[in-house]
Amino acid sequence: MAEALRVALAGLGTVGGGVVKLLDANRDLIARRAGRPIEVVAVSARDRTRDRGIDLSRFAWVDDSSSLATLDEVDVVVELVGGSDGPALTLARATLAAGRHLVTANKALLAHHGLELAETAERGSAALKFEAAVAGGIPVIKGLREGAAANEIGRVYGILNGTCNFILSKMEAEGRDFAEVLSEAQALGYAESDPTFDIDGIDAAHKLSILASLAFGSQPAFGAVAVHGIRHVLGADIAEAAALGHRVRLVGVAEAGPQGLFQRVHPHLVPLDHPLAHVTGSTNAVVAEGNFVGRLLFQGAGAGEGPTASAVVADLIDIARGEFGPAFAMPAGSLSAASVADSGERRGRAYLRFTVEDRVGVLAEIAAAMRDAGVSIESLIQRGVAADGRALVAIVTHEGPERSVAQALERLRGSSSIAGQPLWMPLLG
Amino acid sequence: MAEALRVALAGLGTVGGGVVKLLDANRDLIARRAGRPIEVVAVSARDRTRDRGIDLSRFAWVDDSSSLATLDEVDVVVELVGGSDGPALTLARATLAAGRHLVTANKALLAHHGLELAETAERGSAALKFEAAVAGGIPVIKGLREGAAANEIGRVYGILNGTCNFILSKMEAEGRDFAEVLSEAQALGYAESDPTFDIDGIDAAHKLSILASLAFGSQPAFGAVAVHGIRHVLGADIAEAAALGHRVRLVGVAEAGPQGLFQRVHPHLVPLDHPLAHVTGSTNAVVAEGNFVGRLLFQGAGAGEGPTASAVVADLIDIARGEFGPAFAMPAGSLSAASVADSGERRGRAYLRFTVEDRVGVLAEIAAAMRDAGVSIESLIQRGVAADGRALVAIVTHEGPERSVAQALERLRGSSSIAGQPLWMPLLG
Repeated sequence: MAEALRVALAGLGTVGGGVVKLLDANRDLIARRAGRPIEVVAVSARDRTRDRGIDLSRFAWVDDSSSLATLDEVDVVVELVGGSDGPALTLARATLAAGRHLVTANKALLAHHGLELAETAERGSAALKFEAAVAGGIPVIKGLREGAAANEIGRVYGILNGTCNFILSKMEAEGRDFAEVLSEAQALGYAESDPTFDIDGIDAAHKLSILASLAFGSQPAFGAVAVHGIRHVLGADIAEAAALGHRVRLVGVAEAGPQGLFQRVHPHLVPLDHPLAHVTGSTNAVVAEGNFVGRLLFQGAGAGEGPTASAVVADLIDIARGEFGPAFAMPAGSLSAASVADSGERRGRAYLRFTVEDRVGVLAEIAAAMRDAGVSIESLIQRGVAADGRALVAIVTHEGPERSVAQALERLRGSSSIAGQPLWMPLLG
Repeated sequence: MAEALRVALAGLGTVGGGVVKLLDANRDLIARRAGRPIEVVAVSARDRTRDRGIDLSRFAWVDDSSSLATLDEVDVVVELVGGSDGPALTLARATLAAGRHLVTANKALLAHHGLELAETAERGSAALKFEAAVAGGIPVIKGLREGAAANEIGRVYGILNGTCNFILSKMEAEGRDFAEVLSEAQALGYAESDPTFDIDGIDAAHKLSILASLAFGSQPAFGAVAVHGIRHVLGADIAEAAALGHRVRLVGVAEAGPQGLFQRVHPHLVPLDHPLAHVTGSTNAVVAEGNFVGRLLFQGAGAGEGPTASAVVADLIDIARGEFGPAFAMPAGSLSAASVADSGERRGRAYLRFTVEDRVGVLAEIAAAMRDAGVSIESLIQRGVAADGRALVAIVTHEGPERSVAQALERLRGSSSIAGQPLWMPLLG
């Protein structure tokens, strides 16, 4: 058997520990499939003494992770430090600049610096691989980069954040509101103590920008994604959606259109006959629509020790086999600049919810604003709500330009009849 | 840009025509992704004169497909002739023996001769690739071979035949019986005029044997699969399944167990909370369960011109990129022999349906046979049926060995109370 692929591992949190456990547990199988053994030779982490349930004494220990990049007898560096900048970026740059292969699970790093890192990797003929950065254990990077490679992709979209899907599923199943379910998710460890990256859609946007790059041959660009999270979704919105035959899901969508590539993360109403409506809990799912293959769906665990480690090691096996090419499916120099999302020209149906004072003339005011902006209403429901004496008005529009809906909302801004911000959600078409 | 990958195409039916159209339509995109152009240079088919809607004058024409294997200036042969033996096998052997790459969509060929062909490919350092052979456009070969490569797979299973799923979905939606729906499917072109390979499960078994080889490191072996089709499923079975919260699907299952690898194609009762229950029409879906990644689901179009061509060209792109290794994920010499399916030791819940004479003592006879064989009954329903005055008895057993159920059925064989063959279907666990 050929020589071992020698791995240096930076970061020994949940995923790093999982990678060590996986390489131990499936050692022989992996060697047979990869054609050679895969061996961790060096590690680096913040705390050398913490008990991780794995024997670290067999690995060289390095305090400064960036020195892994130039350590002798290392073929691949696995970066599991996290963060778009700082030590992760320093290590990634140094590794690729040294002509060494890099495997990372770091979506923020790629969304912000993916192009630069891909260019450096190409100069050194090194692999830059990141299956674990999007949708955990699901081989969706490979699915787009290779599986669907023969297709012009029209749209790629999916449920990319397990925390949000867990919260939305639980709100739906138990008829509860966001804040309450978030606290519980935090207590159970399903949401971070600072949940901003997840619930405000930033994590999903990082992942979407990577998928879009692979699907559309564009430069990964976090700044080109319009981002909205789930913080303002009420239990009542989920109930209204259900009455309309839909479920609420945080969906990242990247789509080729007349204005160029459009990328947005936003809570959507997903019809019950769409597979994404049936993705519950912390599961992730990605759909790619190709001009020959039609609709492909990839579904599985989007996070966690085992699934994420599975994706990291799949990348290592590809490298051991010598099966890797340009990071974003084509040479970095031929990736086009991503256009910044402009939703105005987009057309679709939308859900609108207003919390209103329960008094004469409110509905007329809303209806007039819709009419004046040219928004055609498909259905409207008003329901009394709770203790504060306010009512809820939920509208579904006919298909039309998003610009018109935005104009209607602008007309209603500052109205004394409307409490707080209205919520707008597109229907997934 | 590097030199073109030169392709010879044998077979110009639906899929072959699709490959030519795809390579024309997505020509520039494919060249960018593959790093070099992919060009058809020669073709062979039975009828040179048939109008296929594509211009063949730009390709060299060869009457004898086997001569493509040694034609000058060809890098890859794409075999779309079909059939486990005959011209397809001759061409495959000659191509690989000449050290040329082979791409095929031919599941029968691989299920019967996959090991031999993989050995020949290895000797010549040639690629043997077959993404299109299983589940059409869905990249499930790649998903198992590479995406889930870090995992010990416990079970791989799925809906592998679109014709059967179309028929079962239609029986379910319209409450009709098998024969009627089959005729309609044939008239619509969703089923072949000789539908045996599809409806008797043979096509699904070909595909399952390929998936099992990749998942379990076993030699592909059609003869090791227990095969049962959907011919004996009644509309009444589907209605009973629905009343029990299940749908009937033809599922191929390969599972590692104490007796070794077990492979079976059989109609199953699939619970409504399982994603396979929601796969309708001619869609295919494959689930792989890995010891680290958990449950992965791949879903999409399982057949048709566009999807199958997409998979064929994905293989060509891999070859153009130089990203290929052993056909069945590890060297052919290290694949273990597949054990022949022995269901006796398997445990599970099962559905049993008897068509019985409507007279005193029938239920007692069935119940006694179950008791004497040690089969524990979870539910039993008797319903009167249609014009012939017979009744239908549907039983769901508690979990237990399949051997016991087989013994109970053996005890009832020849009973004058029971009309025709009882139907047994496992519940997907």
